[in-house]
Amino acid sequence: MPRGDRDLILSRHDVRFLLHDWLHVDELTKRERFAEHSRETVDAVLELAADLAAEQFAPHNKRNDAEEPEFVSTDGVGRVRLHEEVAPALRAAAEAGLLSATMDAEVGGLQLPHVVGTAVQAWFHAANIGTWAYAMLTVANANLLQAHGTPEQIATWVPPMLEGRFHGTMCLSEPQAGSSLADITTRAEPQPDGTYRLRGTKMWISGGEHELGENIVHMVLAKIPGGAAGVKGISLFLVPKYLLDADGKPGERNDVALVGLNHKMGYRGTVNTLLNLGEGAHTPGGGPGAVGYLVGAAGGGLAAMFHMMNEARIGVGAGAAALAYTGYLKSLDYARSRPQGRPAGAKDPAAPMVPIVRHADVRRMLLAQKAYAEGALALVLYCGLLVDEERTAPTEAERIRAHLLLETLTPIAKSWPSQWGPEANSLAIQVHGGYGYTREYDVEQHYRDNRLNPIHEGTHGIQAADLLGRKVVMAGGAGFTALQETLSATISRAAEAGGDAAEYAAALRAALDRLVEVTGVLHAHPDAEERLANASVYLEAAGHVVVAWVWLEQLLAAAGRDDDLGRGKRAAARYFFRFELPKVGPQLDLLASLDRTSLDTDPAWL
Amino acid sequence: MPRGDRDLILSRHDVRFLLHDWLHVDELTKRERFAEHSRETVDAVLELAADLAAEQFAPHNKRNDAEEPEFVSTDGVGRVRLHEEVAPALRAAAEAGLLSATMDAEVGGLQLPHVVGTAVQAWFHAANIGTWAYAMLTVANANLLQAHGTPEQIATWVPPMLEGRFHGTMCLSEPQAGSSLADITTRAEPQPDGTYRLRGTKMWISGGEHELGENIVHMVLAKIPGGAAGVKGISLFLVPKYLLDADGKPGERNDVALVGLNHKMGYRGTVNTLLNLGEGAHTPGGGPGAVGYLVGAAGGGLAAMFHMMNEARIGVGAGAAALAYTGYLKSLDYARSRPQGRPAGAKDPAAPMVPIVRHADVRRMLLAQKAYAEGALALVLYCGLLVDEERTAPTEAERIRAHLLLETLTPIAKSWPSQWGPEANSLAIQVHGGYGYTREYDVEQHYRDNRLNPIHEGTHGIQAADLLGRKVVMAGGAGFTALQETLSATISRAAEAGGDAAEYAAALRAALDRLVEVTGVLHAHPDAEERLANASVYLEAAGHVVVAWVWLEQLLAAAGRDDDLGRGKRAAARYFFRFELPKVGPQLDLLASLDRTSLDTDPAWL
Repeated sequence: MPRGDRDLILSRHDVRFLLHDWLHVDELTKRERFAEHSRETVDAVLELAADLAAEQFAPHNKRNDAEEPEFVSTDGVGRVRLHEEVAPALRAAAEAGLLSATMDAEVGGLQLPHVVGTAVQAWFHAANIGTWAYAMLTVANANLLQAHGTPEQIATWVPPMLEGRFHGTMCLSEPQAGSSLADITTRAEPQPDGTYRLRGTKMWISGGEHELGENIVHMVLAKIPGGAAGVKGISLFLVPKYLLDADGKPGERNDVALVGLNHKMGYRGTVNTLLNLGEGAHTPGGGPGAVGYLVGAAGGGLAAMFHMMNEARIGVGAGAAALAYTGYLKSLDYARSRPQGRPAGAKDPAAPMVPIVRHADVRRMLLAQKAYAEGALALVLYCGLLVDEERTAPTEAERIRAHLLLETLTPIAKSWPSQWGPEANSLAIQVHGGYGYTREYDVEQHYRDNRLNPIHEGTHGIQAADLLGRKVVMAGGAGFTALQETLSATISRAAEAGGDAAEYAAALRAALDRLVEVTGVLHAHPDAEERLANASVYLEAAGHVVVAWVWLEQLLAAAGRDDDLGRGKRAAARYFFRFELPKVGPQLDLLASLDRTSLDTDPAWL
Repeated sequence: MPRGDRDLILSRHDVRFLLHDWLHVDELTKRERFAEHSRETVDAVLELAADLAAEQFAPHNKRNDAEEPEFVSTDGVGRVRLHEEVAPALRAAAEAGLLSATMDAEVGGLQLPHVVGTAVQAWFHAANIGTWAYAMLTVANANLLQAHGTPEQIATWVPPMLEGRFHGTMCLSEPQAGSSLADITTRAEPQPDGTYRLRGTKMWISGGEHELGENIVHMVLAKIPGGAAGVKGISLFLVPKYLLDADGKPGERNDVALVGLNHKMGYRGTVNTLLNLGEGAHTPGGGPGAVGYLVGAAGGGLAAMFHMMNEARIGVGAGAAALAYTGYLKSLDYARSRPQGRPAGAKDPAAPMVPIVRHADVRRMLLAQKAYAEGALALVLYCGLLVDEERTAPTEAERIRAHLLLETLTPIAKSWPSQWGPEANSLAIQVHGGYGYTREYDVEQHYRDNRLNPIHEGTHGIQAADLLGRKVVMAGGAGFTALQETLSATISRAAEAGGDAAEYAAALRAALDRLVEVTGVLHAHPDAEERLANASVYLEAAGHVVVAWVWLEQLLAAAGRDDDLGRGKRAAARYFFRFELPKVGPQLDLLASLDRTSLDTDPAWL
């Protein structure tokens, strides 16, 4: 572990390796949008993020878990008391400009590449995901508004969010409608003045109430009466906690009432709320309903939200990767310092104990964590680069290709880290033994926090249906073809490189060919239920193939390095190709058989 | 789900199926030791356990987690305040005779078969593992003393433990010695009166201090000065919290002091303590050290403790299985009542939502849980039967065979449920969606509680070394041979049965043959480090082969049943053979290659 990684959040060396040696971020700085930047400015922002994460976020991570947000009712109004260390940390990040790292200079952003912004976020996720979530939601909100709001809406709401004065939420789910957004029942009645009045109940709203700043900007999905059935009847509304007065300052309270808090297993620092809109707790202007402003076209709410949700999904993957990463570094640090036992085969009971990292089984658990954590982080950074490519690549063909590839990879970038990140955290606990199971150490919190990631922003099953049911067939299969071409190009380079790279290239070639073949079998099958019955298995197999590619890429990027970082990358790549990639064989065989076990099982038999 | 299972703890139908239709427990009642019993008495005890678990244990499970034990210091003496509902529940179980279900009638036991006692325990594990642990520790302690104590020690200490008046602990680990017990430093100085004085610090002591009853009986590992180095210098001592007065009543306080509590992620209802022995907090008789009584021979402590530890390891497996089971039933119940979305392929957005159990992916998650939970419970019950066989089978050859088989299966019966039980609980959360991640529902607690099981009573890695390094070679490989013969006999029966059973038999035959072959390769290999480097992978592959056998056995036992239980067993068996058993292929290939990835990785590269 290089000295700079001793804060045990992420590895500064590895982040630089991934961004520069692998993804060549400085190539982006030759483009007009990023012309103000260089390798030096990128590194300076990364160092700033790493330092702020270590100094302002990591120190209160455990306290923000143990002393979770509280519901307090004053004068009949529900409020939330957050841990006192949350606000100063968020203020420091906002003041450093890190909330608007990737946004346009004209709204006050640093206009950095998105891939760099992803790395910046990863530092804060790893240091304190509970506190950082408030910033993440706010940034996502600002991005959503930037993409779909009117110029006036953008001018009014985006700058105070980027300055950390206003915060944001996404209000999608309702108690009866989570995965199935078509079934939301919140209503938005048009008013003569062009605004709307919203009535309904929103569930699972992170950051739904608090007093971190001057205002909260809720982005709310609701249905305008008389609209289309299902998802086409859903529109997007901006519903502020406080309406703005004539000077643009927060004034009258809008009719958004906190009903209660959800008490989660982990991720406790982020308050999660149940909100009532238009239930009469506050009735501005005398009429019933919360005042809302339509964002984008009526009926276009879900499409707009999905634009943002794709970003949020990669953000979830980044969070899962970051938690896996910090858990890995902490268990590695523990394994190097904790003496216990003697190596296998050593017989002298009087010999001194060795640090547990000397036991092969402990190194296996560390290698697995390294393979999951660094693989997952690399995957989400690659997706960050694709965002830059889809926006700024020189030719339209390149931009379209990046877009298709990103769409195809998004369910994997969300799910793979969310599945293997918690597994990495479980191994981090295991390396610590009994100590890891106690709240005196960090890793049990990472394990609890990370367990949310396969649930929110679309469950594992929703991602699976998205990948197999939509993404691999969209645009005539062009996204899936782009993925194959991308992997194949790397396989060819690795085959030429010889040695381990060539061995792994052959294994990846075989797995990719089989994945393509099985995908064909599934999509040639006429019955939708049978085709999708094992979509989750497909998602998991495709994820392992993609991350094997990520490791082959890292191996090539580290070629010729004979330092610890290079050797570590080779060891983790070897682990992934020997221990992990072979798992896809039985999964793909199962898929090829169009197995009906789940379909044929009557609920009464369970 | 049959009506009797609506308390969502275990399935009464399934427990009866496993004990009677599969394991034919009534055959045991023909033996002299169990002559007082019959199918009717067995069923009556099981119903009693099920009712007590539902009425006395399940109701405070969440409260015993949320309001965990507290350290209170009065007059400079550390005490523990337990939740007020713990003591009455334990008293009810003791008064019902369930603590001594399997013990000799002459010490007040019901003298039931051990397999029935395992099922009884499973009810309490599932209902409230935190509260039940106090009883489990006490019973294990009584068993240990029964096996190794003098008649006087047994007469003095066992009856009050079985009556629930005294409680027990196991004091093995120390802060610097967990997996490596050879390195404990607690000392026991012999005294002229034949007693010992103990000084040292014991870590991770569950139930180390509380005021549930009149006394606590600590079973402590310590070294007598001048003894052998390593494990052969370890002896076992009985160290009571209160010394007994001339009338056998708890009198003077012994020098065992509570130093602090460990605050765990789960399993919170069971207080976990750090204890000091002989640090002068109390000095009975004026001398330094805690008064202890040698149990068994000097130097025989670890062997004696292992006798008990094997039982405790199967108990851990039973707890992991039971938590998986209750999580399964709760997520099944949720899936049947929660409406969300429409089946794949349904296009009408106005169609009513369906219960989520109608989605194939949800049934997949339920089948996986069923396969893990019922498979794990069946495995530990089978091990319970082997305890009965090793003690009461008619011929010595049968008793020896049962002993060898039990020894071989113990690391699997501990580890397999501990690995897949938490996975089942993770799926139970996933079925619940966001609700499952909140403390308003039960499953997040099961997930946290179950995560301890791969750690305590010998970690996953310790079990792996035990299986591959000791169990498969002990007695010239006789235990492993007995395992092969057992599986082969079932395979033959299944092959003759035809249909699905024959298909699965062929798959299990292939997996078993490959496991035997790989075991041979490993044991022919001269280098211990290389042989054992991937012992954990071996443990996991062997576990899946054994549980595939458990499912084949259940399938045969359910043959011809056309009720929901029979169909459910066939569905879960199909799931296991299609989705799970194939996972061992790549694992066994890796082992056959004597992979050196972990060995070759220098800690500096990580």
